[in-house]
Amino acid sequence: MTYALAIHGGAGTIDKSKMSPQLEKEYIKGLEDAIYAGEKILKNNGSAIDAVCAAVCVLEDHPLFNAGRGAVFTSNGTHEMDAALMDGKDQNVGAVAGAFGPKNPILLARKVMEETDHAFIIGDTLNDIANSHNLVIKPKEYFFTQQRWDALQETLKLKQEGKVSDDPAVRHGTVGAVALDEKGNVAAATSTGGMTGKLPGRVGDSPVIGGGTFASNQTCAVSATGYGEIFMRYTAAADVSSRMKFLNEDVQTAATHIVMEELLPNDGTGGLIAVDIYGNISMPFNSSGMYRASVSSKSDLVVAIF
Amino acid sequence: MTYALAIHGGAGTIDKSKMSPQLEKEYIKGLEDAIYAGEKILKNNGSAIDAVCAAVCVLEDHPLFNAGRGAVFTSNGTHEMDAALMDGKDQNVGAVAGAFGPKNPILLARKVMEETDHAFIIGDTLNDIANSHNLVIKPKEYFFTQQRWDALQETLKLKQEGKVSDDPAVRHGTVGAVALDEKGNVAAATSTGGMTGKLPGRVGDSPVIGGGTFASNQTCAVSATGYGEIFMRYTAAADVSSRMKFLNEDVQTAATHIVMEELLPNDGTGGLIAVDIYGNISMPFNSSGMYRASVSSKSDLVVAIF
Repeated sequence: MTYALAIHGGAGTIDKSKMSPQLEKEYIKGLEDAIYAGEKILKNNGSAIDAVCAAVCVLEDHPLFNAGRGAVFTSNGTHEMDAALMDGKDQNVGAVAGAFGPKNPILLARKVMEETDHAFIIGDTLNDIANSHNLVIKPKEYFFTQQRWDALQETLKLKQEGKVSDDPAVRHGTVGAVALDEKGNVAAATSTGGMTGKLPGRVGDSPVIGGGTFASNQTCAVSATGYGEIFMRYTAAADVSSRMKFLNEDVQTAATHIVMEELLPNDGTGGLIAVDIYGNISMPFNSSGMYRASVSSKSDLVVAIF
Repeated sequence: MTYALAIHGGAGTIDKSKMSPQLEKEYIKGLEDAIYAGEKILKNNGSAIDAVCAAVCVLEDHPLFNAGRGAVFTSNGTHEMDAALMDGKDQNVGAVAGAFGPKNPILLARKVMEETDHAFIIGDTLNDIANSHNLVIKPKEYFFTQQRWDALQETLKLKQEGKVSDDPAVRHGTVGAVALDEKGNVAAATSTGGMTGKLPGRVGDSPVIGGGTFASNQTCAVSATGYGEIFMRYTAAADVSSRMKFLNEDVQTAATHIVMEELLPNDGTGGLIAVDIYGNISMPFNSSGMYRASVSSKSDLVVAIF
């Protein structure tokens, strides 16, 4: 039997010229830790859902990636996190937006999926769910990173001058994972702090099923990262699946088409990761880079940024 | 040139046996008022976006339909409204969730689309947007209806007894409109109070682009009404468009397939309305009825419930 796993840490890659060897090493280490955490589960006949959650939790806990600890700040200097989880087996979903407190927003999305009658929940109810299911809650100091705070100050300064940052990291920070397990089930997970300096309450494509997250055992699992407003308009994640289902495209062809032919011409910079039900992996992006890694029972570990 | 317009007032139709002639008359009048408001705009060479907003505003203002005035109550006895608007011309979108205050949530979604850098906004920021753009705000008394309050008490009582209401009106109340204008642009609008007794913060498929709302000038405009958690999983609105685009199905075939073959077998009761870029209209449903109406430059007015 086959298993496969791919992860991304966002397409907000800094210029290669500005990436120090030390920083690059830290990113690579974070991606490796995440993919090993997910692969360990798949190797032991665990489920795709467990694997994508484990991988995303590692990235959420890592301060360099824009999700959980290290999430970007809203224009008010607060954190608001979005996440979604989808099980390809029954297309069951759990999504959250505007979450703050739980250390791992992806586990909160999982509680929405497994413990409530609903699929998508926002606001204060999320804290009740987190508390009643004993999720680890962290104070705001835990989520603070100097790097994100400085990015907010820079963004607010530019805004006051009527300018917009041209740093793709402002728009593209997200983490995600997609997996196929040995039972043949696929799953997708996406988690993000959103865009630096976003209006409080802004929701991106990550928790929008079919936008930034999608999984179906008929086709594939997809997690996207990019300019969420555009990914949402073009139902990017669902369309990878639709092209496979209706046009018989393979996952590489479908995913690349969406990223290069649909999103890029419409200012939809970013990328996505996808795994099909045979364990084939695609990780296309139209930005300068995308933090990513993949491994499967039939292919070696790949870890890459640019 | 051709124009076309279809509207729905939800698939939460009460049993025909329980519908009094007086009540039926009031529903029919509400649907007629809404479709005339939208048609007037289309007849005068107005835009599809303006037409769907005008039609939805009439339904939001009408206390019998579950959107705006007459919205259902959450389990806390509050109102939380979701809405989305999509312009087929550029696939631009505006979506809101958990809104309370603006008389017409669909106009709030329009402000998100036209006046912010974002596509989907939740929470307190919505009140700032409503105020700064002079939307009409109403107090909670305005939104109260005895019928919805009684439905909440019934739902809470059943829940305490460990039961779930079998009244489809509990799950299926939504309003929506889809239109084609004489310039060849399509648009879709959906607005809802959600499910009676929903957890505060629950978001359904209405504001999820590709779930309950979708529009593209490549294919069609769609607004759905039904069991939102399921419609979201199956990206119902986007899939009508995908089947047309990739399988060359006509709008009637695609819409009927989604409602009868994809949603119904998966407990996804409800229906949808769709208009294609040639002015063909489809209004399939798998529930006992769906409040609906349609008219076009090439077809007479249809108003129906069962």
